[in-house]
Amino acid sequence: MRATGRRASLRVMLTLALALALQATPAAAPKPSDPLPADWKPVPDDELLVMTLAGDRRVYIRLAPRYAPVHAANIRKLAAARWWDGESVYRVHDNYVVQWGDPTEKKPLPAGVIAQPPAEYDWPVYDAVTKLTRSDPYSTATGHSADGWPLATDGKVAWLPHCYAMVGVARDLAPSTGSGGDLYAVIGHGPRHLDRNIAIVGRVLEGIEHLSSLPRGTEGGLGLYKDKRQHVPIVSVRLASDLPAAERPHFQYRAADNARFAAWVKARENREPPFFNLPSGGADICNAMPPVRRTP
Amino acid sequence: MRATGRRASLRVMLTLALALALQATPAAAPKPSDPLPADWKPVPDDELLVMTLAGDRRVYIRLAPRYAPVHAANIRKLAAARWWDGESVYRVHDNYVVQWGDPTEKKPLPAGVIAQPPAEYDWPVYDAVTKLTRSDPYSTATGHSADGWPLATDGKVAWLPHCYAMVGVARDLAPSTGSGGDLYAVIGHGPRHLDRNIAIVGRVLEGIEHLSSLPRGTEGGLGLYKDKRQHVPIVSVRLASDLPAAERPHFQYRAADNARFAAWVKARENREPPFFNLPSGGADICNAMPPVRRTP
Repeated sequence: MRATGRRASLRVMLTLALALALQATPAAAPKPSDPLPADWKPVPDDELLVMTLAGDRRVYIRLAPRYAPVHAANIRKLAAARWWDGESVYRVHDNYVVQWGDPTEKKPLPAGVIAQPPAEYDWPVYDAVTKLTRSDPYSTATGHSADGWPLATDGKVAWLPHCYAMVGVARDLAPSTGSGGDLYAVIGHGPRHLDRNIAIVGRVLEGIEHLSSLPRGTEGGLGLYKDKRQHVPIVSVRLASDLPAAERPHFQYRAADNARFAAWVKARENREPPFFNLPSGGADICNAMPPVRRTP
Repeated sequence: MRATGRRASLRVMLTLALALALQATPAAAPKPSDPLPADWKPVPDDELLVMTLAGDRRVYIRLAPRYAPVHAANIRKLAAARWWDGESVYRVHDNYVVQWGDPTEKKPLPAGVIAQPPAEYDWPVYDAVTKLTRSDPYSTATGHSADGWPLATDGKVAWLPHCYAMVGVARDLAPSTGSGGDLYAVIGHGPRHLDRNIAIVGRVLEGIEHLSSLPRGTEGGLGLYKDKRQHVPIVSVRLASDLPAAERPHFQYRAADNARFAAWVKARENREPPFFNLPSGGADICNAMPPVRRTP
């Protein structure tokens, strides 16, 4: 009995992994939550940032110009000016963030980059097309935008929540809002207390593991690398639309404004047997992040 | 202006880090949330598990015998039998779990270890001594036990939530509950959908970075290491009480059944200026984990 049980556990881990996978392997019988081919929409080339770290480690980030237009415009200009090339990942704070940019804080910003953008922390129109069954401690409702983003609201304004792999703009004390030169990605439990206190500008679509598995920094309780030799060199950061067409990577997000996606949300809220015996009946938006994939 | 702003950002990161630190550096004026020296209680030696990985990387885990007694008893026996020595960390699944034990699934369990403990997933008495202001999608209330654990309830039963660094027992499909030989620690956003579906037996108090920064596995979408040479060898796992007294590490948890702790909870829910301009007014239990520290 025990031997059987233990021998079977790889199979179970597989079951578990499938339950957790963003897109389930197509089964024989289609499920209500299965996407149609047309549900996959292209991430625009001018929203896709490709950061290449030493060792040919690539991190693909979708920018959110709809939600943080001035910060996104800055980031596009910084990439076009190759501002990050030769800079580094200099902070890896366990269960919090990985941060990159210019650790000397002395590099001049390129012409046209706005040093202090407006506080694009929230906006007045909450237009999620799904609604999670239960709210969380940081918002009165959460859901998904039609164009592939997680959203939160307090009933008055809307914002992008600090979930795993979301990308934000490091900033100084107010009134600074951060130029976009120093960015961070969440690598732990969503620090949602940062919501509406800082600008979220994107999400890592692929390659987060190149950031999340970096050695942790130890300086000052901040996760800063003590020794500059620990810094992880950034080879380049480019907007896909600035690359030759043949070299552009392509990603898709799953459109949320349809019944299949609503069924997918329900499935995230109620994980199924045989592994799950007790469905939660609800989910945290950070555990129901919009599915994305490489364009097949 | 811009230069000043950027130059000041390390100071701001420090401010931010202090706001996030489990224990604030003692300030000139005491705060209502400051603990008294007597608020720090010892983690019992027979609840502290020391896992040493190759390279002298140590992970310290507090067991939760009050909440999962049969699983905890198994784990103590496995450690006493040196069952894990020579085994490995074989699974590192990004934004999910790190898992260790016997990847061959063939190693016999020591005498006295119960292969299939009862499903210690929840229990009928919810006795949190704090109450977070707002609930989350997975529970109707959350809070802290007097003895240093996060708790969740649905109003009927209580359980330990799947937060970052919490340790659970890998299991096969029901009726298996897992022996405790294969364990996992959460290294991403709390997968709270696992709550009440699996036994939580402890929490990593120190050294989680030795697990969370490991290279991610790629096998089968599970995070399993494809090549056995990637496995991270476990040198030893010992209960502190099985070590010679002089070699025992000592940790403390902060008692939650006092007004200072209640004030600390409020401070976690309402992060303060100068970095935070907008307090959340609530917090996820996973962002308000009970403070622990090395015994000074």
